Amino acid sequence: MLSKNTISEIRQLHQKKFREEQGRFLVEGNKSVLELLSSDWQIEVLICEEGWLKDHQKKIQGKTDTIIATSVEMERISSLKTPQPVLAIAHLPRFSTADILASEPLLVLDSIRDPGNLGTIIRTTDWFGIRQILCSPDTVEFSNPKTVQASMGSFTRVKVIYHDLETYLASLNGERPVLGTFTDGVSIREMAFEKNAIVMIGNESQGISKRLHPFITQKIAIPSGNGGETESLNASMAAGIVMYAWSKQ
Amino acid sequence: MLSKNTISEIRQLHQKKFREEQGRFLVEGNKSVLELLSSDWQIEVLICEEGWLKDHQKKIQGKTDTIIATSVEMERISSLKTPQPVLAIAHLPRFSTADILASEPLLVLDSIRDPGNLGTIIRTTDWFGIRQILCSPDTVEFSNPKTVQASMGSFTRVKVIYHDLETYLASLNGERPVLGTFTDGVSIREMAFEKNAIVMIGNESQGISKRLHPFITQKIAIPSGNGGETESLNASMAAGIVMYAWSKQ
Repeated sequence: MLSKNTISEIRQLHQKKFREEQGRFLVEGNKSVLELLSSDWQIEVLICEEGWLKDHQKKIQGKTDTIIATSVEMERISSLKTPQPVLAIAHLPRFSTADILASEPLLVLDSIRDPGNLGTIIRTTDWFGIRQILCSPDTVEFSNPKTVQASMGSFTRVKVIYHDLETYLASLNGERPVLGTFTDGVSIREMAFEKNAIVMIGNESQGISKRLHPFITQKIAIPSGNGGETESLNASMAAGIVMYAWSKQ
Repeated sequence: MLSKNTISEIRQLHQKKFREEQGRFLVEGNKSVLELLSSDWQIEVLICEEGWLKDHQKKIQGKTDTIIATSVEMERISSLKTPQPVLAIAHLPRFSTADILASEPLLVLDSIRDPGNLGTIIRTTDWFGIRQILCSPDTVEFSNPKTVQASMGSFTRVKVIYHDLETYLASLNGERPVLGTFTDGVSIREMAFEKNAIVMIGNESQGISKRLHPFITQKIAIPSGNGGETESLNASMAAGIVMYAWSKQ
């Protein structure tokens, strides 16, 4: 049973403001919660239906408090259209640019606004073994329920860092090549990605901000096969295709 | 001004049942409607705010009746969370397997359920110059408002055909190679895609249906760079990355 108080506390976490104030967020659904349980992330509490607990008891093993709820209660606390039989409250990690490894690939996101796009990008970086993403402060927060859902648990394996991009790129003093996607760039088929390359993906409709252009050392592009009729690819799709080409090296 | 009757007729088209009964569907938003106007698709009527009409009058040029609506009315007829200043009612095209060109690449979708995924796939096929998609009957309908929105107008340039896959593949008598994505397939980096290849993408969680396996002449896979920790890529991402590799040939 959930108290009215608990229900309203959890519902607060549907909102960015409260997630940031309280430093915690919701992880919903079987796949995401199982990934969370097998990670070293801190879980405050797990709320689930009895049937789910029976099937997964072994995976919890004293890692977190567990509260049993009815499916009606799950529906009340869920932020998703299709409520799931399990939900966890996890601590928001605090990464900074000091956590960026200079010798590892870094994906940079300039103002990605769609939560599903960010989640899909996190899932895809994880697939290609890219484990750090630097986001502009106006990129959607990775604790957004739709982002968490789309990332399918991959958020536990990828550092997502929010920081002003201009400041960070200036601080590099040209030490790393910075590749950015543009329509008039060099085809990624012909590119040799350097090992310590940074790849930047721009906003869904505006592309990469003008003020960041001076930091781009190489414009890159995804070759189109349609004679230029389609203007663009979806931002997460573009990121994924570039990562595929990038991961070849 | 919109009559109550018109409003309720348009709202019916939010539902698949009425779209199929009436053979028409909604196209919302500036980008999608402009693509529709520059295509040869039949438009029944265009409903827009006065400001939108002023900016785009030239592009309409007698192609369709136009009704002016207020933003409040647009909100009432919209199927989207963020209503747009323009909406068109278009005729649903009726493609059949007879429209499939045997010498052109064909993407086959087995039970793609997420409307956003289908829209993103349509947008990406268009980018790579693939102009025909065959979908299993249980794939989400391409006239779903979220699919139309995610396709960003590309639906006007790609034939989306619904037909039983088993029947269609059996009818080919092995004339075309059929490549399907599996976790244990040959890496797409090493693949030479034949010119008349068919590529099949499976359902978001189940992959390609067992009953279709006998028709697959080559299992293919997207190489992962993470040592196997992530189970899978999003279905539209997988489709897009395969199309990138495929379009090289």
